[in-house]
Amino acid sequence: MSFAAVDVIVAKRDGYELGEDAITWMLDAYTRGEVAHEQMSALLMAIFFNGLSAAELRTWTDRMIASGERLDLTGLSRPTVDKHSTGGVGDKTSLILAPLVAACGAAVPQLSGRGLGHTGGTLDKLETIPGWRATLTTDEIREQLETVGAVVCAAGQGLAPVDRQLYALRDVTGTVESIPLIASSIMSKKIAEGTGALVLDVKVGRGAFIKRYDLARQLARTMVDLGNDHGVATVAQLTSMDTPLGRCVGNALEVTESLEVLAGGGPSDVRTLTLELAAVMLELVGINIDPVAKLDDGSALATYRAMIRAQGGDPDAPLARAALNDVVLAPREGIVQSVDALQVGLGAWRLGAGRARKEDPVSAGAGVVCLVREGEAVSAGQPMFELHADDPEHLARGRATIEGAFELGEEAVAPSPLLYERVAK
Amino acid sequence: MSFAAVDVIVAKRDGYELGEDAITWMLDAYTRGEVAHEQMSALLMAIFFNGLSAAELRTWTDRMIASGERLDLTGLSRPTVDKHSTGGVGDKTSLILAPLVAACGAAVPQLSGRGLGHTGGTLDKLETIPGWRATLTTDEIREQLETVGAVVCAAGQGLAPVDRQLYALRDVTGTVESIPLIASSIMSKKIAEGTGALVLDVKVGRGAFIKRYDLARQLARTMVDLGNDHGVATVAQLTSMDTPLGRCVGNALEVTESLEVLAGGGPSDVRTLTLELAAVMLELVGINIDPVAKLDDGSALATYRAMIRAQGGDPDAPLARAALNDVVLAPREGIVQSVDALQVGLGAWRLGAGRARKEDPVSAGAGVVCLVREGEAVSAGQPMFELHADDPEHLARGRATIEGAFELGEEAVAPSPLLYERVAK
Repeated sequence: MSFAAVDVIVAKRDGYELGEDAITWMLDAYTRGEVAHEQMSALLMAIFFNGLSAAELRTWTDRMIASGERLDLTGLSRPTVDKHSTGGVGDKTSLILAPLVAACGAAVPQLSGRGLGHTGGTLDKLETIPGWRATLTTDEIREQLETVGAVVCAAGQGLAPVDRQLYALRDVTGTVESIPLIASSIMSKKIAEGTGALVLDVKVGRGAFIKRYDLARQLARTMVDLGNDHGVATVAQLTSMDTPLGRCVGNALEVTESLEVLAGGGPSDVRTLTLELAAVMLELVGINIDPVAKLDDGSALATYRAMIRAQGGDPDAPLARAALNDVVLAPREGIVQSVDALQVGLGAWRLGAGRARKEDPVSAGAGVVCLVREGEAVSAGQPMFELHADDPEHLARGRATIEGAFELGEEAVAPSPLLYERVAK
Repeated sequence: MSFAAVDVIVAKRDGYELGEDAITWMLDAYTRGEVAHEQMSALLMAIFFNGLSAAELRTWTDRMIASGERLDLTGLSRPTVDKHSTGGVGDKTSLILAPLVAACGAAVPQLSGRGLGHTGGTLDKLETIPGWRATLTTDEIREQLETVGAVVCAAGQGLAPVDRQLYALRDVTGTVESIPLIASSIMSKKIAEGTGALVLDVKVGRGAFIKRYDLARQLARTMVDLGNDHGVATVAQLTSMDTPLGRCVGNALEVTESLEVLAGGGPSDVRTLTLELAAVMLELVGINIDPVAKLDDGSALATYRAMIRAQGGDPDAPLARAALNDVVLAPREGIVQSVDALQVGLGAWRLGAGRARKEDPVSAGAGVVCLVREGEAVSAGQPMFELHADDPEHLARGRATIEGAFELGEEAVAPSPLLYERVAK
């Protein structure tokens, strides 16, 4: 069936529900280059205003999946379950969760991306480990899932390729912040990846992509429904991203902190969130094991080491350290009222930990260590943040940002909650 | 000042008012090719949803005018006043108005376009007169305004050229139907044309571009304010376009009907509307003459003949007639409940009077003559419409449309009003 693109745009603009045939034609014709970018961007803006119904979104996501390959992870001896986070500052849970849940008996196919902007990327973090490689073939992924149980690797370009086109278009046309478009972008890749179950960590707050709680909840609900509609058992956990997760923000710094948690220690917020997400993942695949036991008995750490080795990495090699470091001191006595995740993320980015364009390199050692948390009392001159950078220019730029990332005051501050509600089928 | 296009789009999308510098940068950068079509189309769609404030629209229109040349019609011995219609079926008032108002002492610079779709174009009509040419230089326009007082000619490509780009983009991206975008498209060209005063005939109804009365009134108000803001004394008259204006729809057919009105006869609705618009035009330039007198004493017709001759046309040459003609008969006895302007317009277009693409030729002789009007009683077999076409295929296609263009019934029908409200400063 053939359509005129302008008729599809006008129908969405005027609030009509698009039929399956219209959406299918539009996305397929766009992929073939028959619908112009200016027409797709007008449709995306109309979707920003008028949304997509559940039926429209299901078809839209179907066509994104159908634009590329779909991994077949069936037939493994372990059930598959993955986790996806909408992105946060200091969020290194993937590095811990994959081996932890694998140690409990599941297979975790964690197909990831690189960081862009103020939130870090899981692949960037693992690439600070000498020898480790992010790119695996489908056969290698299957084999590693069977033998080790955990894979963290690059999502191939073949998964939902139209998403890359659409994302590039949305990025320059002001149509990124649309719940159905975000949901279809994330879920098309996760469904194409072939996992049987999925836990979504939907971050909300100052340092998150989504700052409003109602929108985060709506995104969670939309993605959970999309996943379950496509046969992927999906649950979402809403979590706070007002303040950085853990103490370390930066690539090698976060690997080090992950190892602390895998060894049974580490910051309590990282440990709490990881165990919570692990519990949901295990519940989804019917494995009745308390993940704490696997941290305590060393098997999670052992699985991590096996996972790194399977991808060519040396888990015992020393990690890169930045050439320069510095500290930000408390300018006066007081109680830490807030540590702003967005500002800390931007600070780490300016120190060299992140990239502005996707072809830029990142610094392995650059980043921030938060020495204090919200609610803690500090005395004048006490170190609050440790800064790491490869050169004086990055150090100065990052420092200026971090100096504005916190507030001191006189009032007692109760720690803000980490876990909000859970959204299930 | 420089902006990122995406920031301008997002601001409009999120309901903020764009500053003068942002709009200026955006339109100028688009003209230079630095803002991509997909970005402009996203902005246009955001404007469709969120509109433009009076200040935004004023700047937007300013930049469209500034994208090209602006005619200088000052210094003539007569005051200048133009008329613009938003387009109707059978609307030949321009052909009568220009010489009529000139005969009263004003100068009428009627810079026009060609027809597209179901409404005819003034230039297409006049081009059926042997020898007549639509293209004049600015000097020729000024000279003819001084000597004859009336010019109907092609609006040069140099007037608000960015409008052509924007219109082509709007046409394929579902962003045509936006009040501020329609208003700026029309008014940028009319202001650039250099007229001192302007009467807008804003059509509303089945056969009009705008079908809803509230939107037509909003468009009228928007354009009147824009014109007066730019120093052009502007008034709008809302008029009905549910049923065709006059009896004739088609290029040469409408010239013939215009001559009837100029000679003091013709259909009463064409005469009424023309005299009403003429009165408003004269009022705007302070000429206190009753235009009826200029129809009665033959001076309007004499000015018409002078105007045609000044542009190379022979007002005495016989007009083209289509090779074939046919009639649509009343299928039964009854009272004409309605004659649908849109269907008659489409019928005339299919008979060959209009064009689908702007490079298509039009037939001079093709068209429809409506032999009955709403409210008239007809007997079975009575001729209702006369059809003119150059070949059997066009005749058959047009006939099928015209057969569905009217309704017969038993109830008495009061003629619908022709003139609605007037919108002034």
